[in-house]
Amino acid sequence: MRSTTVSIQTLRRLPLYLHYLKSVKDELPSISATLLADALGLNDVQVRKDLGSVSGNGRPKKGYVTEELIVDLEEYLGCNSNTPAVLIGAGNLGRALLSYSGFSDYGLRIVAAFDASPAVVGKEAGGLTVRPIDELKKICTDNDVKLGIITVPASGAQDACDKLVACGITAIWNFAPTTLKVPEGVLVENENLASSLAVLSKHLIGDGRIA
Amino acid sequence: MRSTTVSIQTLRRLPLYLHYLKSVKDELPSISATLLADALGLNDVQVRKDLGSVSGNGRPKKGYVTEELIVDLEEYLGCNSNTPAVLIGAGNLGRALLSYSGFSDYGLRIVAAFDASPAVVGKEAGGLTVRPIDELKKICTDNDVKLGIITVPASGAQDACDKLVACGITAIWNFAPTTLKVPEGVLVENENLASSLAVLSKHLIGDGRIA
Repeated sequence: MRSTTVSIQTLRRLPLYLHYLKSVKDELPSISATLLADALGLNDVQVRKDLGSVSGNGRPKKGYVTEELIVDLEEYLGCNSNTPAVLIGAGNLGRALLSYSGFSDYGLRIVAAFDASPAVVGKEAGGLTVRPIDELKKICTDNDVKLGIITVPASGAQDACDKLVACGITAIWNFAPTTLKVPEGVLVENENLASSLAVLSKHLIGDGRIA
Repeated sequence: MRSTTVSIQTLRRLPLYLHYLKSVKDELPSISATLLADALGLNDVQVRKDLGSVSGNGRPKKGYVTEELIVDLEEYLGCNSNTPAVLIGAGNLGRALLSYSGFSDYGLRIVAAFDASPAVVGKEAGGLTVRPIDELKKICTDNDVKLGIITVPASGAQDACDKLVACGITAIWNFAPTTLKVPEGVLVENENLASSLAVLSKHLIGDGRIA
């Protein structure tokens, strides 16, 4: 594995490559950047550069051994890291994420779910029992959790975020439609479904052009 | 409402403003771009410009009447448009989206869910009965559906996409971790959870810097 500086755009594409390679590894023992680019509808120069930044195993004219490239990508992305995470907000979206098994492929393991509502605490969600917020600190410490997922309504998101930061969380995956303020060193990745929907709706309405 | 060209970045921020304004409208009958920027952790020049592109109701030094700005944003975003959509792929993620009530606030109404698996067809998901794929055309035509949501595994995503396009869909919300090829005029909005997770994991691993 190479440990170079990659752009955030490259980083976002790597799971696409990995997913595709896993799906074709039985049929294609080796694969070129050009073929991969074509399959994914991406520019082949870009794909070559992306792959070169995470794997030194590509050979001119021959491309990559698929299995080796999968291993390099998995290692680079920490897919086997089994990263523990906690989730705050066990509503519909939270429960959805808890029951979504796809995350384990990328090394994510949600170890506990929390909710502020007494009506939800104690209920089962995705194989976990929803815990009260006051157990957050202990769970984070005991499991060395550094990643927090926020699926509360926007009005409660900053409070959830502050609690996570106070427990030593340094990476936050925010599904609440709001902007979070965090201290330096804490990374927030916003997953704003409402924003995506706005782009799609505007395209359908078609009364205002998107620049 | 103004009907101007807005950037896609502005468009993505508009739901954030709307969500925040709705949460404070009882306490704040009027609001300035500066206050809104501060609350959301955004640049106030940017917020002023964003709001100016969708509402002509702002007044110098006084800001916006909160209720009026909410109406302008809702109108601009088509929140009352009640846009019908279909969803293909009633697995965990699909079912999660089906049961997520937050979309209706943004004018989205999922009218039908489809799945290729006989084991899933006929089952209930988020208040709908999962239908076989061969009913897609009829449902799309009957309900004048232009928006399709893809929540199938990556390997089946292009096929689902092609089927949607053949049924007259012009906007696709893709949750499958793959790139879709579509004809000109069809918009694809990718919601790649694996990419977000890659960014978060890399931050936590910290062995490769993100440029």
